[in-house]
Amino acid sequence: MGETMKDVYVGVIGLGNVGSGTLAILTADAEQIALKLGFRLRVAAVCSRSVASVKLPDGLGDDVLRTTDWREVVADPRVEIVAELVGGTTTAREIIEASIAHGKSIVTANKELMALSGAEIWDRAIKAKINLAMEASVAGGIPIHAVLREGISGDRIIALAGILNGTSNYILTEMERSGTPFDEILAEAQKLGYAEADPTNDVDGYDARSKLALLAALAFGERITPADIFVEGIRRITPQDFDYAHQLGHTIRLVCSARQTEKGLLLSVRPALIPQDAILASVKGAYNAVWVKGHYGADTFYYGRGAGPSPTGVAVVSDLMRVAREIRCGSPERVSPFAHERLGKYEPVSITTQQRPFYLRFRVEDRPGIIAELAGILAAKQIGLEAVLQLPADEKHNLPFVITVEPSSELAVREAVEQMSKLDFLREPPLALPIEPGL
Amino acid sequence: MGETMKDVYVGVIGLGNVGSGTLAILTADAEQIALKLGFRLRVAAVCSRSVASVKLPDGLGDDVLRTTDWREVVADPRVEIVAELVGGTTTAREIIEASIAHGKSIVTANKELMALSGAEIWDRAIKAKINLAMEASVAGGIPIHAVLREGISGDRIIALAGILNGTSNYILTEMERSGTPFDEILAEAQKLGYAEADPTNDVDGYDARSKLALLAALAFGERITPADIFVEGIRRITPQDFDYAHQLGHTIRLVCSARQTEKGLLLSVRPALIPQDAILASVKGAYNAVWVKGHYGADTFYYGRGAGPSPTGVAVVSDLMRVAREIRCGSPERVSPFAHERLGKYEPVSITTQQRPFYLRFRVEDRPGIIAELAGILAAKQIGLEAVLQLPADEKHNLPFVITVEPSSELAVREAVEQMSKLDFLREPPLALPIEPGL
Repeated sequence: MGETMKDVYVGVIGLGNVGSGTLAILTADAEQIALKLGFRLRVAAVCSRSVASVKLPDGLGDDVLRTTDWREVVADPRVEIVAELVGGTTTAREIIEASIAHGKSIVTANKELMALSGAEIWDRAIKAKINLAMEASVAGGIPIHAVLREGISGDRIIALAGILNGTSNYILTEMERSGTPFDEILAEAQKLGYAEADPTNDVDGYDARSKLALLAALAFGERITPADIFVEGIRRITPQDFDYAHQLGHTIRLVCSARQTEKGLLLSVRPALIPQDAILASVKGAYNAVWVKGHYGADTFYYGRGAGPSPTGVAVVSDLMRVAREIRCGSPERVSPFAHERLGKYEPVSITTQQRPFYLRFRVEDRPGIIAELAGILAAKQIGLEAVLQLPADEKHNLPFVITVEPSSELAVREAVEQMSKLDFLREPPLALPIEPGL
Repeated sequence: MGETMKDVYVGVIGLGNVGSGTLAILTADAEQIALKLGFRLRVAAVCSRSVASVKLPDGLGDDVLRTTDWREVVADPRVEIVAELVGGTTTAREIIEASIAHGKSIVTANKELMALSGAEIWDRAIKAKINLAMEASVAGGIPIHAVLREGISGDRIIALAGILNGTSNYILTEMERSGTPFDEILAEAQKLGYAEADPTNDVDGYDARSKLALLAALAFGERITPADIFVEGIRRITPQDFDYAHQLGHTIRLVCSARQTEKGLLLSVRPALIPQDAILASVKGAYNAVWVKGHYGADTFYYGRGAGPSPTGVAVVSDLMRVAREIRCGSPERVSPFAHERLGKYEPVSITTQQRPFYLRFRVEDRPGIIAELAGILAAKQIGLEAVLQLPADEKHNLPFVITVEPSSELAVREAVEQMSKLDFLREPPLALPIEPGL
């Protein structure tokens, strides 16, 4: 089996969901990991603000440093890899900077920080000749980094689309299944601990946006600023929208999309209609998925758990194994996956430049002439009307109905929607969702 | 971007579908590949029996050696990586052995050879301190090797199931879609070049079996002998079987399955009923897919083209890039992915030990008492009858009907089927398909 290699010691900082999942695998599967690597992956130190009260796995040796001060972990001379599992962009940044300064390699699960500063961190890691890995940062249970970095690295990616936020996907697919409104499902999910007390990050699309920024940066080799990405959440989606979508042979998902266009890279996180037989439509509950379209390899699709201690722990342990192997082989990072530097910073293209069919849903005070007025606004913007749908009304004065329009410039559709919003018979602004082609 | 590294030269042996797809990408995307690697991947030599008549890409330099003798490629001092793309187990084996002897690294797309002798080849590669890669050998368009080797290497895999033969999946899904019988679809596929003149390898499951042997070896770290794997093809599947399967909420696919049981590793390639809402059921046409169940990470699912010059070319180019990087970093292979050697050779477990519900389809000469007689045989074997289904008959004396049975030992079901086959009212032996749980 080749020459023998010295064991590699790891310091784990952060003992929440991801950290505890990581420690559980490292201790329970120590033998199997050693067989796969040809040497042992040992835990030298663990750190958490509440390290005294955290239940650590039984298999963890007595010689493991347990501390509340992450600096002790980074400074521990045995530690060759620091696992940064605290999240956020403040302490995590300090940990990563200190690790680089100490010449320690890093495994991180931190999407926000890597989406925001990944390119800079990677450049510094290369200069410091250390290794860096972040499989757990996007779609914890899906090894999408390994796929992009190695599996399909020979392809030229032209588009990707994903379901990257488990909480919002759970809410949408539960709404689809049971017909329960948004607020009730969210409240139930919060009670069960599936959703945070402040759900903004999940249901308004910001979590998904960080993940898309990171994925797209890796897929396209560009530095991408999350704040440049168009984002729209799922709060306005109702069970009736699913009824209408089904009538059109579609369903609704919070779709994270990135694609090369002639004008540049077009990025968005937004609820969209997708065909019911699209493979992305089969993603239910808290699962995540990524669909990739390559210039050569055509479609590939990756699916798995979005989060959870064990799936995310697998990602961290797989990274630790890879980095440990690279360290023992003397292979530091040499090329940043973030920026091939061929174009410098990309120019974000506004989604208003795209052509799409749209789904427009209206809630109105019923009176004659409504359709005529709405159709008039569309016609004035050169937007072709495709169909008008109305399900049987369940309540007087609350008649949601839907107009679908032919492929149109999103700019024109938005201007029409803005104009419509001023009409006195509308009970709320129209909901406009793009109708995406089959993936 | 770190220090500068010397370009890596490649020799491509075999200029069929895979070889030409590989060359096309290497020449058209030379710049992008150099940006991703930090150095160039150059073609030094190409070899094919018909190299004089093969159309080579324009971008290929004039200094590229073109030869009909693979030994010249292996011996070319510039060549650091040999891409073995000829297939089969005779010349390919010689090429790989000669490459190892010359200290050249190897990228191969050869499933038969690696399924048969991969463990030995890997051991020799490690001794010779070269690199070896074989992403294209299974499910060309799906980076499943990268996933198993790196992406989820920290997990303990307990089961996998796949659709690994595009031709048979095309035939089954076309039968499902159009109701056309097997022979007609096969003839059409042969006319269009989707199926070989001798379709045995595809429709009788042998191609899928090689791929399963290879995948399972990597997933479970065991040496697996393809001939030990139970295999059954799709020739007996009819459009009526799809009608019945749909009535049961299922569909039919040629499922490659490997799972850890208490008794050992259970492997099979066979047509099976799977739930229509299982993600594996969404795999249509010539696509391939692999579903993996990990002890920690739970379900993940991977989907893409099974074959074709471009998708398989992406796999070969991605391998070339990885191996080139390893060579420049001085990281030869150190641990075989084939055998963790923990158990030596695995003990194959007979599928007759498994418990499954079964679908039994009968074609009979109608007369009274048939169900009673069949039910009697099942009862004598302690097999619980679940349902009897009969679609409206389209033809006198040719009434296929179906009996489904409760989860039963496959051994008992087989004994019952054998006994039934002797009954004079049966026009052919019963077709018995396992009903698999949702994946």
